[in-house]
Amino acid sequence: MRQLLVIGIGAGDPDYVTIQAVKALNRVDVFFVLDKGEAKQDLVALREEILRRHVERDHRVVSARDPERDVSAGPYAEAVEDWRRRRADVCERMILDELPDGGTGAFLVWGDPSLYDSTLGIVEDIAARGNVELDYEVVPGISSVSALAARHRTVLNRVGGGVQVTTGRRMSAGFPADVDDVAVMLDVRPMTRLPAEGVDVYWGAYVGTPDEILLAGPLEKVAPRIDAAREEARARKGWIMDTYLLRRRS
Amino acid sequence: MRQLLVIGIGAGDPDYVTIQAVKALNRVDVFFVLDKGEAKQDLVALREEILRRHVERDHRVVSARDPERDVSAGPYAEAVEDWRRRRADVCERMILDELPDGGTGAFLVWGDPSLYDSTLGIVEDIAARGNVELDYEVVPGISSVSALAARHRTVLNRVGGGVQVTTGRRMSAGFPADVDDVAVMLDVRPMTRLPAEGVDVYWGAYVGTPDEILLAGPLEKVAPRIDAAREEARARKGWIMDTYLLRRRS
Repeated sequence: MRQLLVIGIGAGDPDYVTIQAVKALNRVDVFFVLDKGEAKQDLVALREEILRRHVERDHRVVSARDPERDVSAGPYAEAVEDWRRRRADVCERMILDELPDGGTGAFLVWGDPSLYDSTLGIVEDIAARGNVELDYEVVPGISSVSALAARHRTVLNRVGGGVQVTTGRRMSAGFPADVDDVAVMLDVRPMTRLPAEGVDVYWGAYVGTPDEILLAGPLEKVAPRIDAAREEARARKGWIMDTYLLRRRS
Repeated sequence: MRQLLVIGIGAGDPDYVTIQAVKALNRVDVFFVLDKGEAKQDLVALREEILRRHVERDHRVVSARDPERDVSAGPYAEAVEDWRRRRADVCERMILDELPDGGTGAFLVWGDPSLYDSTLGIVEDIAARGNVELDYEVVPGISSVSALAARHRTVLNRVGGGVQVTTGRRMSAGFPADVDDVAVMLDVRPMTRLPAEGVDVYWGAYVGTPDEILLAGPLEKVAPRIDAAREEARARKGWIMDTYLLRRRS
């Protein structure tokens, strides 16, 4: 039997890490990393910083190349499903090869493992296959949505209202029914495409880090500034991590 | 000028507190508490435990009686608005009387200040009145929704889908449009009232504490068990803090 921990380490500020996460980090023999071969060196550095600051016991870090998503693998959900399966193959191999029976492995997750993160799905996949007997636990983390709201000093919901957390892809279909407040993740398309009338935006990039950028105001006015800030930041840093809250004015 | 910190301390487990929150706690001269005169002695004890474990500097705790919500003060939103105003009166008085100019005060918030919590609204109210010059910061916390998902080892959203966070009051009007996953807070009504067909539930009470109860499965089957567990727990402990996720089966 092997133990796996899926540990949320918060979204941005290394101080978003919880005491529970610190305790979990100190139970780990092997940290598994899916290396995205990416420009996000700041994120890699942040992860190393968290291990350096908080982990006192001997441990190993084992990484494997993250498979590419096959964009030709059919419709969106199927393509993601196919990708998940290939990532599970890679992670299962790492676990079998590098984590001894009775050992504890971990995956670190940016933000919160329960919001738009694939790690738990991968672990479930591996557990369901039954090639490796494992038990797993989840440690919640500060999500990018919570971090964004805190930095804008705002509440996500209004009195008696609901909040939807959704994706950029879904926002392209229009403002959701039923709610006046929407937190949007994973949006790479221009903000200027969104219907702006009567809507305020609270946007943030690299929230909780020294590179943090915050912009807020009527969407109509602020959307072009956000698009420009995004383009500039992406060019300068090679990657961007941003989130926003849209709010219908009452 | 006075400094105020609104500090999320997580929902349940004292280890949900973040390093950022610990650092913030150690900047505080005066902690302000709205005393609900309630049966929730466990929550009071948990808050004291967090201060005892993590605060190393001298500090004071100042409390005032939380005003009752006037249930006759018109429709729901107006009644809440009226309540907020009276709570702001009480808090403003505490700040003026007990926090010296140049000092740092704090409100501790269960879970995350950005989800269904009134503290930020109260602080905004006080700041807007201008009777006391203050600056304030928000420290995000692990929300009860994140904690629930972690304990059930599940992800809130499905691939490409949205999630709605909403209230029991709104759930009574039916499953929201647009989403298949709904996290529900502040629900005191029976689960058996909810339309159950094709819906799974992940429910938790006192999540992250030694009293934690978790139940999951088809809503039709599990709703009566949840209602019974709630009733038993409320009778035994005098209060309950619970949350649930509803998921349309795909």
